[in-house]
Amino acid sequence: MRLRIDRARLAETMDALGRIGETPRGGLSRVALTDDDRRGRDLLVRWMKEAGLTVSVDQMGNIFAVRAGTAAAPPVFMGSHADSVPSGGKYDGQLGVLCALETIRTLIDAKARTRHPVGMIVFTNEEGARFQPAMIASGVMAGKIPLEDAYNARDRDGVRLVDELERIGYLGSEPCVPRPMRAYLELHIEQGPILEEEGIPLGVVEGIVAISWSRVTFHGVQDHSGPTPMRVRHDALVAAAEVVSGVRAIARKVGGNLVATVGRLDVAPNIPNAIPGRVGFSVDFRDPTESSLDRAVSMLDRVVRAAAKREGVRAEVEHYWRVPRTSFDREVVEAVEEAAVALDCGHRRILSGAGHDAQYMAAICPTGMIFVPSRAGRSHCEEEFTALDDIEHGANALLLACGRLAGLEGTAR
Amino acid sequence: MRLRIDRARLAETMDALGRIGETPRGGLSRVALTDDDRRGRDLLVRWMKEAGLTVSVDQMGNIFAVRAGTAAAPPVFMGSHADSVPSGGKYDGQLGVLCALETIRTLIDAKARTRHPVGMIVFTNEEGARFQPAMIASGVMAGKIPLEDAYNARDRDGVRLVDELERIGYLGSEPCVPRPMRAYLELHIEQGPILEEEGIPLGVVEGIVAISWSRVTFHGVQDHSGPTPMRVRHDALVAAAEVVSGVRAIARKVGGNLVATVGRLDVAPNIPNAIPGRVGFSVDFRDPTESSLDRAVSMLDRVVRAAAKREGVRAEVEHYWRVPRTSFDREVVEAVEEAAVALDCGHRRILSGAGHDAQYMAAICPTGMIFVPSRAGRSHCEEEFTALDDIEHGANALLLACGRLAGLEGTAR
Repeated sequence: MRLRIDRARLAETMDALGRIGETPRGGLSRVALTDDDRRGRDLLVRWMKEAGLTVSVDQMGNIFAVRAGTAAAPPVFMGSHADSVPSGGKYDGQLGVLCALETIRTLIDAKARTRHPVGMIVFTNEEGARFQPAMIASGVMAGKIPLEDAYNARDRDGVRLVDELERIGYLGSEPCVPRPMRAYLELHIEQGPILEEEGIPLGVVEGIVAISWSRVTFHGVQDHSGPTPMRVRHDALVAAAEVVSGVRAIARKVGGNLVATVGRLDVAPNIPNAIPGRVGFSVDFRDPTESSLDRAVSMLDRVVRAAAKREGVRAEVEHYWRVPRTSFDREVVEAVEEAAVALDCGHRRILSGAGHDAQYMAAICPTGMIFVPSRAGRSHCEEEFTALDDIEHGANALLLACGRLAGLEGTAR
Repeated sequence: MRLRIDRARLAETMDALGRIGETPRGGLSRVALTDDDRRGRDLLVRWMKEAGLTVSVDQMGNIFAVRAGTAAAPPVFMGSHADSVPSGGKYDGQLGVLCALETIRTLIDAKARTRHPVGMIVFTNEEGARFQPAMIASGVMAGKIPLEDAYNARDRDGVRLVDELERIGYLGSEPCVPRPMRAYLELHIEQGPILEEEGIPLGVVEGIVAISWSRVTFHGVQDHSGPTPMRVRHDALVAAAEVVSGVRAIARKVGGNLVATVGRLDVAPNIPNAIPGRVGFSVDFRDPTESSLDRAVSMLDRVVRAAAKREGVRAEVEHYWRVPRTSFDREVVEAVEEAAVALDCGHRRILSGAGHDAQYMAAICPTGMIFVPSRAGRSHCEEEFTALDDIEHGANALLLACGRLAGLEGTAR
């Protein structure tokens, strides 16, 4: 039995889902728990039900859909997220969800029987663009984030996550806790340049770098930009600028694979003729090695203290989110590798620089990921793109790896 | 005849107007052409009409109220603005308007006759917090800003100034052009620390520094903060931070009285896990000497070019607003000085570091200003404060200077 996904059908679902929240420039703005997110979820649930799957929603709005196996055994789940960053692309998240659906549809069409049930999960608010931290729903599922904390997360307008879940009709009743799972598999775009640079269509993901998120706030003295002599100023933005430059310098000093980003920065009152009284900003560090990450975080503390002292402003620093380095399960990684071999598809082992729900899932069950190339390494932008040929390879690898882990009956390859 | 303003009545009007748009911390958020601005204007117009003044509104929403003189001569106008910055204070603008009203009420109560009519003006959108540039309505009146441009100024939500003028009912029909004026006098808080530091209650303002506003935008490459190696990044915020530090360095290098501020800075997409693709910010330079200002602006160009080159981002720079150094009219400055002497009130000559509508008015008629002290020099913040004793001195100086310029009959002192 030679199982392969239906490329045209997969492309059709990508088009249809990609129209919900599409930007004028062809990107995607389908931010978590907005009306567009609801419309996207509704379409996915319709497809799941049309495929005859059993659909359920948990307390964090994660959507589960399962096809029965031949034994009373824990399911193999595939999945990803359907939310995007603002002005993001049509591949980050959505692609993994649709390849999971396509895999299940292929098994159904082939009347293929698996010992383990096969299912898919659509995770809530993976991006962390609206509610922090990112990957909040898999974090709750893995017991790493208290449900209460997640419910009380607020967006920048002060709206609570739980209220938005309820508003869009996805506040489910199933407990958001670890459930028995044979394995979790996530297909995702690489979001970096390595596969493309090396001309390799498929990444066998071995693990995910460690991530640290911090929030820094400087409290200066808001005053008029005209009559306030330079000698008496305490400008929160001047201090923040020193730290933005300092974060770049930390990446240079620590070197190796450390990446360091100030992605968000908010100025108050943010008008041309007032000295900024308050500036808050995010610092994102990532490294495959925990000790390098520790070093970067303590260097940040020093840079913040020095900037605050020089400008005479008060600093608050919160290192509020840390995800340790994740190593994926050897059996799952090998199943992906064997799928690539069976497909005669060029592949290499790779480490993910981005966080994924798979990071938390690895604490619950044997977990692995498949990467497909990102054109120019671009992601979290409207220019995000992966060629359909590469997507087809990735989806077929997902199908074969899933079949192997689920105990596909007959000799599928 | 010994004319003095009514301190209690002035304080009452300050309280009443200060409640419209009051913040929980006792400051004022009455941003131009909002509903609160309309309510503030309505109250002022009611008071003007109750005093028997002739009220009119021009095409820019500037409110005029005039008391007749004994001759068909051009009026002496006093005035200021009634809009505030967000989270601003209750003195900047509002105080000058209310001292003008109090002066006219005092003349009326005393049945004092003046050869020239005496009037007051409430200017629209002086702050420039919502619509840029600042002082837009006096700028139109002085012929320095085309009416069309002012009408098409948009706030950050894309709303046009003219539509907001109409919405709040202050799109008047009188042409916004120079009209014959005997003089223009504006009382304002100093917004700087000098009068308080020197223990002097009254500033005789000789002129206003030259002001230059620029807008800088860096276009980098938006990408994911995780899998994007440092070596391939083009981060618009890293470039912007270099310029924020550079603007501070320009102030140090040029020295003297130059002040330099980056007050507004907007990041896109502004989320923790995306490398900023676009950052726009304001640069505000002010100096009593035009040549120092020129030097600062060309240093800014160099700093922007260097930062753009280093980070590999594209820069746009617009030096979009420039107001030359203003020297006030000698006769008006002396009238203020003589008023201070008549009141036996400590005073000194002073230069304004902030722009005021008086800056544009100086192009239309003989103009001068009176400063009262700002506690700790603080302004454009909720902590803005001036003691009532100082306000009383200032208002009486305004009354006497106005009386002198308007040709008050009898021997007022």
